[in-house]
Amino acid sequence: MIEAQTLPRNETGIEAALGVLKQRFGEKFQTGQAIREQHAHTTTWIDNQPPDGVVWPQNSQDAAEIVKICANHRVPIIGYGTGTSLEGHLNAPAGGISVDFTDMNQILAVQAEDLTVVVQPGVTREDLNTHLRDQGLFFPIDPGANASLGGMASTRASGTNAVRYGTMKDNVLALEAVMPTGEIIRTARRAKKSSAGYDLTRLMVGAEGTLGLITELTVKLYGIPEAMSSARCSFPSIDAASQAVMATIQYGIPVARIELLDPIAVRAVNSYSKLDLPETPLLLLEFHGSEAGVAEQAELFGQIAEEFEGTGFEWTTSPEERTRLWKARHDLYWAVLALRPGSQSLATDVCVPISRLAECTVTALAKAKELGLIAPLVGHVGDGNFHVSPLIDMENAREVAASKEYVSWLAELAISMDGTCTGEHGIGQGKKPYLAKELGEGAVDVMRAIKSALDPQGIMNPGKIF
Amino acid sequence: MIEAQTLPRNETGIEAALGVLKQRFGEKFQTGQAIREQHAHTTTWIDNQPPDGVVWPQNSQDAAEIVKICANHRVPIIGYGTGTSLEGHLNAPAGGISVDFTDMNQILAVQAEDLTVVVQPGVTREDLNTHLRDQGLFFPIDPGANASLGGMASTRASGTNAVRYGTMKDNVLALEAVMPTGEIIRTARRAKKSSAGYDLTRLMVGAEGTLGLITELTVKLYGIPEAMSSARCSFPSIDAASQAVMATIQYGIPVARIELLDPIAVRAVNSYSKLDLPETPLLLLEFHGSEAGVAEQAELFGQIAEEFEGTGFEWTTSPEERTRLWKARHDLYWAVLALRPGSQSLATDVCVPISRLAECTVTALAKAKELGLIAPLVGHVGDGNFHVSPLIDMENAREVAASKEYVSWLAELAISMDGTCTGEHGIGQGKKPYLAKELGEGAVDVMRAIKSALDPQGIMNPGKIF
Repeated sequence: MIEAQTLPRNETGIEAALGVLKQRFGEKFQTGQAIREQHAHTTTWIDNQPPDGVVWPQNSQDAAEIVKICANHRVPIIGYGTGTSLEGHLNAPAGGISVDFTDMNQILAVQAEDLTVVVQPGVTREDLNTHLRDQGLFFPIDPGANASLGGMASTRASGTNAVRYGTMKDNVLALEAVMPTGEIIRTARRAKKSSAGYDLTRLMVGAEGTLGLITELTVKLYGIPEAMSSARCSFPSIDAASQAVMATIQYGIPVARIELLDPIAVRAVNSYSKLDLPETPLLLLEFHGSEAGVAEQAELFGQIAEEFEGTGFEWTTSPEERTRLWKARHDLYWAVLALRPGSQSLATDVCVPISRLAECTVTALAKAKELGLIAPLVGHVGDGNFHVSPLIDMENAREVAASKEYVSWLAELAISMDGTCTGEHGIGQGKKPYLAKELGEGAVDVMRAIKSALDPQGIMNPGKIF
Repeated sequence: MIEAQTLPRNETGIEAALGVLKQRFGEKFQTGQAIREQHAHTTTWIDNQPPDGVVWPQNSQDAAEIVKICANHRVPIIGYGTGTSLEGHLNAPAGGISVDFTDMNQILAVQAEDLTVVVQPGVTREDLNTHLRDQGLFFPIDPGANASLGGMASTRASGTNAVRYGTMKDNVLALEAVMPTGEIIRTARRAKKSSAGYDLTRLMVGAEGTLGLITELTVKLYGIPEAMSSARCSFPSIDAASQAVMATIQYGIPVARIELLDPIAVRAVNSYSKLDLPETPLLLLEFHGSEAGVAEQAELFGQIAEEFEGTGFEWTTSPEERTRLWKARHDLYWAVLALRPGSQSLATDVCVPISRLAECTVTALAKAKELGLIAPLVGHVGDGNFHVSPLIDMENAREVAASKEYVSWLAELAISMDGTCTGEHGIGQGKKPYLAKELGEGAVDVMRAIKSALDPQGIMNPGKIF
């Protein structure tokens, strides 16, 4: 693993808080080592920095009480949903308490007429969609993992559907949050739009738990489309596939999903999910609309694909076939790891303006090759967002060094193209070196000023973002 | 006029700043009374509180210099676009300097491939759309007035197209801003999505100039739809018209515009724009899409309208007819004022979840009648947003008192329905009493903490929002 920065621990405060929390929360507070380690960072190559204890609030008042206890003793607080974040967000570099929202998993109200739902932060996107299915509604944001809504809001998650439905920023209407003082606030009411003061909703979305704990979310829903079709098409090169994506977006085809897999990723999918896709660059697509609409969209895409030498273009409205393809896409993380057993996967997450997509994907793969890395590329390319994920033998110092060089080089490449070092994973610990490169010290100073104003003790998820 | 709150003036500082600005900006700095009054609040019934001087920056560096001069002398700074805001945003309750962005009206770059454009804050939405037309692109946000993009961002404006295209919050991708220190920051790069730190873009959008001056905007563009159709339909009651809107939205028809006019508003339009619409509740609609799509949408709406006893349903793709109807809608502000010459119009701006729309519109009109007010209703009802605008004889104390009662009552009604006191106009001076009622003191305290952290001297548009 790669060492994560440690921060000074307030031992006296931590000890005192552990005692108070144990007394107050009984069995809902745990300090066993396995549990603590499981609540720290467990994905990619960043070190595991366990908290000192884990507490399971049952409601917002519990969460507020936990924050007050920790604030009294100046002890760090780290929100926990499903543990699927990728940049070390869950680590406790100064120790502290992990607040696990698993028990706060109630769907509080579905307002079908308003296309909104109020949920607790521990509700996962799959649970939410299972609950909604009978009502013909769905929540579109799909980061791959079955993440919790609170966690998805905190990292400003998006994923495969974002090209059509936007990200968490676009789909969270209002939040309830416990601020660092322990006060519970509401950021907005349920009107579809409002100009009432600062946009606290979108300040908390993507704040990575550094400004408070999200204890309730009101999110937007959509009617399940009358028809959905999925399609796939192979291309002779990453450049050709990327050019086809750019043309599709620029033409204005309202694709619901458009995912690029490079040949290594296709090989991983074939092997893991027992498919026999041609092992060349592949686009997977999904279209939502009316029966006529999805047919029209698929055919339009087919014409564009042809222009860019796409082959094997197939589309289907068969639910089984759709599910098979998208299940394979969702399993890609595991499929890729299985390519090289024992290796560590490292997720990069750049996003560039769509006009720079082909240049960025081509350059990114060439550099990985130059550095001798096994680095599959998959991406939500309709947004200009993709992940190249080196598979690293952590015992091999050369590979580790090459990967470090690559992560840094790729972040800077995206920034040089007026893009971002992180489209959807967040800054956490892993992307801290690039934030100021992307936005300038001035913008980061503004963020720091907000952080200090709202959390003067620095107890909310310390060591992240800044 | 209604007296606006005044704040203590820093006379020494103001005098010093006036001298420095005069020396530095010459003819681009003016202190004549007429100019100063024209740069304060000139719409609705809030008092005019002129600044002490008006300065026209030519570029971002000028704006930064102005902020530094004012910061040195603790002098208020008030951004000015086109002067069309409605809640006293432009007033100078503590005196200070109006920063007029009229000269910063350049369209800096159209990135057609990315569907983005970079503009200076003084560009108006009509100028932008004129510039874009040849490229088949448009910027959809349309608050009625030919407002500047900087002003629209600052008030989180929306308007007739928001039901389909969202508000400024959804359409601003990145900003350049001068912060209260005089430092110029960028809030984001041009990637379609990013998780890089706090969402400063959306913090500045809707901040009403209280956190800094917007000096450049990157906003999203859309392809001009292949086809547009407009439609109108009359209804026997506000309830029936509102129910038709609710059904249209809940059915998922992607209307581009759906506007409600009550009989008084229709009468105003008929008289001002020489039309002969039936003087009953009226819906005006616009559909965007393919030829087949807009026909399908219009017909679907026609079926819904029939269910709610709609009559006189007509739709057309004729550009002349479309323009005639929407021109009339845009002139409504003047049309309504002409109903009662010499009266003052007062714009309310509530927005409720769509399921509460009919109840809210019906109750709102009944109360206006009960109070004896002449108060036309118009609204962007697809979002649950509408404006009841009492026409007030300011010499008539009873009418003034009744109007005050009405504004307050309506804001609280919307809040009681989980809505907002301001869908798109902002808080400014006029809606200050309702912010804490809507969001709670806790949320307002968080806003105040952010304000104090970023603007400790309180020089950016003081007396607004809080």
